[in-house]
Amino acid sequence: MGMPMELQTLIVTKGNEQRVQGNLFVLKKDGYRLYPLDVPLEVRRTLQSEASGIAVVKKLEWENNRTTVTYELVSLYSTN
Amino acid sequence: MGMPMELQTLIVTKGNEQRVQGNLFVLKKDGYRLYPLDVPLEVRRTLQSEASGIAVVKKLEWENNRTTVTYELVSLYSTN
Amino acid sequence: MGMPMELQTLIVTKGNEQRVQGNLFVLKKDGYRLYPLDVPLEVRRTLQSEASGIAVVKKLEWENNRTTVTYELVSLYSTN
Amino acid sequence: MGMPMELQTLIVTKGNEQRVQGNLFVLKKDGYRLYPLDVPLEVRRTLQSEASGIAVVKKLEWENNRTTVTYELVSLYSTN
Repeated sequence: MGMPMELQTLIVTKGNEQRVQGNLFVLKKDGYRLYPLDVPLEVRRTLQSEASGIAVVKKLEWENNRTTVTYELVSLYSTN
Repeated sequence: MGMPMELQTLIVTKGNEQRVQGNLFVLKKDGYRLYPLDVPLEVRRTLQSEASGIAVVKKLEWENNRTTVTYELVSLYSTN
Repeated sequence: MGMPMELQTLIVTKGNEQRVQGNLFVLKKDGYRLYPLDVPLEVRRTLQSEASGIAVVKKLEWENNRTTVTYELVSLYSTN
Repeated sequence: MGMPMELQTLIVTKGNEQRVQGNLFVLKKDGYRLYPLDVPLEVRRTLQSEASGIAVVKKLEWENNRTTVTYELVSLYSTN
C-alpha cells in the first residue's frame, strides 16, 4: 500500500514561517514532505526567488497529512 | 550532503511501546526511521516473532537523531 | 524543490508482472515508487486481494517518471 | 523490517563520474542513496569543495547495495 510524499531539497517558505525564538523557525505545509535533517538547505521565499539564507532542519513532524518543519537559520544572505 | 535513514515496513516494538490511551501507542527509536503513515503495518514484538497485530501510524517525529512514532492498533491477533 | 514519490509496503501487481526467469519478475509502474530492497514484502494481485506470496526486491530503477521493480518470489501461497 | 538508505541533496562525484555522452554522466556509489530526480542539484567534486555545476538526475538504479545515478549537467560554473 502506498503513501504519497514529496522529497524536498530546499525550504520554500512562501512567507508562512513563524519565528519561535532567535534563529529558529517553524513552517507548516500540506502533505507529507521529506526534508533532510541536520544538513544545510537553501531557504527561499518562493521557488523562483534567490536563496535568502541557509538553514538546518532540526525537527520534522508528520501528522494528518500535514508536515511541520522546525529549522534554524544558520546564515542569511544580504539582499541589498 | 547525505542524511542516513531507514525505511521501515513493520513496527517492531521490542516491548518499548507506551500506551497513550485506548489503542494509541508511542514508540521511540534511535536514528531516523521512515514508517509509512495512514496505511496498515504489522506490529511485532521482535523482528523474528509472529505479528501481534496491525497498526496504522498516525504521527511521525524526527529530532536529534531520534524517531517517535505514534500508532493506533487496529487489530490484535490472538496468541493462544 | 520537490520530487513526488510514493512509499510502498507491498507489491501490487495488477497482473502486469513479467517473468524474467525462474522466480524473478519485472513490474513497471507509473511515477516514482519506493519499494524497500532486500527485505520480504507481500505480493498481491490487487490491493484488496489476499497475499499471493512473499517477494524480495532485487533491483529498483527510476526514469522518466516510471518505476521498474525486479523482484524474486521467495514463497508462494496456496490458493485452493 | 528496515532498509538503510541515505537521502542526498547534492551530487558529490569524488572524480568517479563517467561521461556517457555529451553532458550525460554516470556515477556509482556504495549503498542505497536517494537522489531526487528531475530537479536541479549542485554537483561538487568533494563535500567541502565549491559547486562545480548544476545537474538534473535522469535515472536512478538500486541493486546489490549499490546506487547508479545518471545525471545531465545543465550548467557548469567557471573555476578560474
